[in-house]
Amino acid sequence: MIDLRSDTLTQPTKKMREAIYNASVGDDVYGEDPSINRLEELAAEMTGKEAALFVTSGTQGNQLAVLSQTAPGDEIIVEAESHIFFYEGGAISALAGVQPRVVQGLKGEMSPAAVKNAIRSDDIHFPDTSLICLENTHNRSGGSIVSLENMSAIYDLAVNAGIPVHIDGARLFNAVVASNHNLKDFTQYCDSVQICLSKGLGSPVGSILAGKKEVIQKARKWRKRLGGGMRQAGFLAASGIISLTEMVNRLAEDHEKASKLADAIEEMNGLTLLNRPDTNIVIVNIEKTLQTNAEFLDKLKKEGVLAVSFGEGQIRFTTHYDVSEKDIEYAISAIQRVI
Amino acid sequence: MIDLRSDTLTQPTKKMREAIYNASVGDDVYGEDPSINRLEELAAEMTGKEAALFVTSGTQGNQLAVLSQTAPGDEIIVEAESHIFFYEGGAISALAGVQPRVVQGLKGEMSPAAVKNAIRSDDIHFPDTSLICLENTHNRSGGSIVSLENMSAIYDLAVNAGIPVHIDGARLFNAVVASNHNLKDFTQYCDSVQICLSKGLGSPVGSILAGKKEVIQKARKWRKRLGGGMRQAGFLAASGIISLTEMVNRLAEDHEKASKLADAIEEMNGLTLLNRPDTNIVIVNIEKTLQTNAEFLDKLKKEGVLAVSFGEGQIRFTTHYDVSEKDIEYAISAIQRVI
Amino acid sequence: MIDLRSDTLTQPTKKMREAIYNASVGDDVYGEDPSINRLEELAAEMTGKEAALFVTSGTQGNQLAVLSQTAPGDEIIVEAESHIFFYEGGAISALAGVQPRVVQGLKGEMSPAAVKNAIRSDDIHFPDTSLICLENTHNRSGGSIVSLENMSAIYDLAVNAGIPVHIDGARLFNAVVASNHNLKDFTQYCDSVQICLSKGLGSPVGSILAGKKEVIQKARKWRKRLGGGMRQAGFLAASGIISLTEMVNRLAEDHEKASKLADAIEEMNGLTLLNRPDTNIVIVNIEKTLQTNAEFLDKLKKEGVLAVSFGEGQIRFTTHYDVSEKDIEYAISAIQRVI
Amino acid sequence: MIDLRSDTLTQPTKKMREAIYNASVGDDVYGEDPSINRLEELAAEMTGKEAALFVTSGTQGNQLAVLSQTAPGDEIIVEAESHIFFYEGGAISALAGVQPRVVQGLKGEMSPAAVKNAIRSDDIHFPDTSLICLENTHNRSGGSIVSLENMSAIYDLAVNAGIPVHIDGARLFNAVVASNHNLKDFTQYCDSVQICLSKGLGSPVGSILAGKKEVIQKARKWRKRLGGGMRQAGFLAASGIISLTEMVNRLAEDHEKASKLADAIEEMNGLTLLNRPDTNIVIVNIEKTLQTNAEFLDKLKKEGVLAVSFGEGQIRFTTHYDVSEKDIEYAISAIQRVI
Repeated sequence: MIDLRSDTLTQPTKKMREAIYNASVGDDVYGEDPSINRLEELAAEMTGKEAALFVTSGTQGNQLAVLSQTAPGDEIIVEAESHIFFYEGGAISALAGVQPRVVQGLKGEMSPAAVKNAIRSDDIHFPDTSLICLENTHNRSGGSIVSLENMSAIYDLAVNAGIPVHIDGARLFNAVVASNHNLKDFTQYCDSVQICLSKGLGSPVGSILAGKKEVIQKARKWRKRLGGGMRQAGFLAASGIISLTEMVNRLAEDHEKASKLADAIEEMNGLTLLNRPDTNIVIVNIEKTLQTNAEFLDKLKKEGVLAVSFGEGQIRFTTHYDVSEKDIEYAISAIQRVI
Repeated sequence: MIDLRSDTLTQPTKKMREAIYNASVGDDVYGEDPSINRLEELAAEMTGKEAALFVTSGTQGNQLAVLSQTAPGDEIIVEAESHIFFYEGGAISALAGVQPRVVQGLKGEMSPAAVKNAIRSDDIHFPDTSLICLENTHNRSGGSIVSLENMSAIYDLAVNAGIPVHIDGARLFNAVVASNHNLKDFTQYCDSVQICLSKGLGSPVGSILAGKKEVIQKARKWRKRLGGGMRQAGFLAASGIISLTEMVNRLAEDHEKASKLADAIEEMNGLTLLNRPDTNIVIVNIEKTLQTNAEFLDKLKKEGVLAVSFGEGQIRFTTHYDVSEKDIEYAISAIQRVI
Repeated sequence: MIDLRSDTLTQPTKKMREAIYNASVGDDVYGEDPSINRLEELAAEMTGKEAALFVTSGTQGNQLAVLSQTAPGDEIIVEAESHIFFYEGGAISALAGVQPRVVQGLKGEMSPAAVKNAIRSDDIHFPDTSLICLENTHNRSGGSIVSLENMSAIYDLAVNAGIPVHIDGARLFNAVVASNHNLKDFTQYCDSVQICLSKGLGSPVGSILAGKKEVIQKARKWRKRLGGGMRQAGFLAASGIISLTEMVNRLAEDHEKASKLADAIEEMNGLTLLNRPDTNIVIVNIEKTLQTNAEFLDKLKKEGVLAVSFGEGQIRFTTHYDVSEKDIEYAISAIQRVI
Repeated sequence: MIDLRSDTLTQPTKKMREAIYNASVGDDVYGEDPSINRLEELAAEMTGKEAALFVTSGTQGNQLAVLSQTAPGDEIIVEAESHIFFYEGGAISALAGVQPRVVQGLKGEMSPAAVKNAIRSDDIHFPDTSLICLENTHNRSGGSIVSLENMSAIYDLAVNAGIPVHIDGARLFNAVVASNHNLKDFTQYCDSVQICLSKGLGSPVGSILAGKKEVIQKARKWRKRLGGGMRQAGFLAASGIISLTEMVNRLAEDHEKASKLADAIEEMNGLTLLNRPDTNIVIVNIEKTLQTNAEFLDKLKKEGVLAVSFGEGQIRFTTHYDVSEKDIEYAISAIQRVI
């Protein structure tokens, strides 16, 4: 099976398994896990933030960012198809009691004017706007990169309004590598950032939340309430350190594979791309094939290729470490047979 | 001063004051206030619902509808500029822990297709959709009427999906009177409905929430938690009964006054209507006058007329019981002088 | 019927009805109701606080005090049988997300040492203690007065710990009158205080929350979210002003009547007092009569006297404005016949 | 250093590290991690429940049990010093919006009569009682065992009242081993149970929540909202399987070591035991030594032994896998020197 459903499906590398086996661990609730401590220091340094916190998932990192920077009855600005609004089970409202104010983006980028307009004025009928969330790369737009220009403009107006900015950077390193910038070029435009160690970076479990000391301290307490405080978590950190230090540059290969897949799909009758892929995600409209998503995916599976439904008439393919160039070639031929 | 800021500003009529003075009252927490009991029975009967509850405001009625028909982590579908989303301080998320999913309406009407599309499928990443909210008349579209056709279509798909429908009917009687239908023609297409006794119906305080017995019972307990359980509340109910029995038909006069005002404004240079008014609200774009909202309202105030800002470049005028036809004539001339 | 169930059952006086009839009113959401404004100024002045807010019930006042002075995940210290914990539907946890830490009091007084001991230290496993709530007079202890000495000692340690103190003073004026002190003698030992205008003070509806400007401002916004923002609320305020200015001293009569009732009950076989009544509440143990609460109350009702069950084997009698001395005499004879 | 602070400090065994290294893993969000699936089936079978869920901590398991079996505004009955109330950051109120009703236990056992009395009757002022939580063994009573008799009596009354029972069984296997019963002897008296794989069972991270299918399904969705949904979580499950299959019986050794330590402490001047230890926790009153907790722990540390403060004048020692009999002998002599 060639599994293009998600980059979350990657198997940890042999090196990761060895690092896990040999990990120095301690009780992280006591602050005594050396691997966790090293990972958190490394993440703080790489993102240019005061502190960082290891969390069990991107969702947990995002939720902690909201819980630590807002109060119930506030409103937070999010892109209309962002993960934090679309895919986290309504948790921002259920846990933090905040109301999302959605702004429709273009390839994941919200226009600064629309963001500014969505900030509430002072009125007893209005919630207070207390956080602006960006997602980079933007999953539902096909892994598209939110540009530094866009981020800078939104961050400027946020600073003026006294409102912090959070980046859901589950796949921020994909943006970094594909745009030939440094991580800090992006993280300079936020107050907090969440980055996944799994997905393209290959670790089995975990994400990093980075930000100001005070925010991370609050997040650490909220993590305990959510049950995310773990004991010998260093097993997971040992792999996370490899993700941050050795797996970033290879993301370029995933982007090439996605590009190759997109090139081929563009040529096929009945299929159109949502966007040219910026990174490792290819979203395809299959409506003209007159097949339902279920039919299409089922046939593809019989050909030995897995992908996922991404809304009516849309299929998502994601490239990652465990998919070779040859696999992509095979997948292209399989897709061709299916349509 | 001719006060066109809101129909919430109406002074109760002499008859209302007398009814209040003479009200039979008891302790409503014990269920012993005869005026409250009569009002709630009357409201249930008029709306065709099993039970009704007196609440202190439209906001409280809406919030109780959400608290009684959803669970934290759910998502509810609301129009993008509906009161429940726009003007209630983020309370649906703060109190009920639900996430709003906004659908952009046209003159307050959400397309049934867009509503259907916004209902979540069964997926561990998704909140469950547990309520659909309509607002009729729709304040921010200028008191526009959501048609029976639109309501019927949305209600049908909601029933199919097993999702209850709530009407924020703060000004539902305006829709009833302006469209020459009965109240039940509208309320047949919902599971719960909130109707204000103040605003055009003139009472000083209060709204009604009506629905199934089980829902109203839950709402009654949530009302207690919100501190909305009152003692000799019959003073307010005594006036509310007059609102429901004697003040409905006169709303037609407010609509005529709004129409007259709109006619005149349409003729003026520099002013355009957001919509032709269906009922008692006139929203005017003043951008071409090159005045800011503050400047425009200030000048108008000096002329003896009050209105309110309704977003950048927009001014809202609302007609009501305390504004005579002559007042409207004067207001027209005042507006003319201001621009 | 002689109704000793609760002082919430009082009918407003003729003077109150007249004040309501003649009330000057405006839209309080716009801050334009002159009666509300006068009541809030009066309440702030009488309590010695910067600002005050009219609310629809004692429960609403208490909940707003919590919502405005705590954050979710905090812990608040409350007496084990206090109204805010026992009788408000779990609202402190449902609305404000705070966990109550109960301290068992003696006649409603928590020992300062126990309160101090209940304050949490700084530990990632612990919630932060962010509010201490007192109830004075204390309903479930039989309207007992929390002494100034006790309040002062708790307030001192709270100030040292940087934790605000809230008084649920639904019946604080009863404590004031019965102890021959001034209101400010009590309110000096708190950061926020809620006082009911109904109950012994006779108004049909409403309470006051007083405190620092910043707290009252937050409470005003939370009141809006709870749906407690009303329009021409001045009708209720007009009566509330009479409560504060003319009804306080007469509470002494209620206390005498309760004392008389208690004297008689103490002499009866099979009945014992929970406490000698400090104010207007008499709680009686009926266990030795071998009657259930329901049997006892039923027989009493047939004799023309109403009281309420107050937990297994306990009955509460409450004196108030609508119960005369002669009524008490009759009630005593009725109770004698029942046992 | 001999570390008696907590059994959470245990280092995973070599066998666990090897199992982790060799673990078959997949994406658990897709339900495809074979190690997680095997662990969950095993846990369901061992507890005699329909289904089980792997979670990252005991706190997460407890919180999910509450989130899945209650609604905001409910009340849950908990022992006054239970972990779920005392040590989880107020999360039951912050996340699930429920109010704890504490019952003071004796050696961790709540009397069935007191539990029954704490169940709320049907009254608009009262929250609904929707869950009863037991903790077995009970940490703050010194790892004491809640007897099957006590559990059975509470479960019976809970079933009669229609209220589910949850066991916080973080250390339930200690009770099982020390009392020579089977796990199911205990779990028959509950609707849901949480059991830690770390602590005495030695795994680095994780707990199990078991219960009815419907409850576990809800818990799985809430786990996603809390960010506890992980990808290749099988690394942790691989160790968890060893905990459940190979580490249970050896808990007896921990109990012997604790007993030996307790024997020695009982003989020492100035030290008294809170209770004879039932399992692996020894709580000691040091007040008669006239040393503060900090002084005592500091001196002990200089002697090479670590323990933790457990409230004013109380010190907790916990035995576990990484502490040998010889270590205990050394610790005894060190304690002797300190006092």
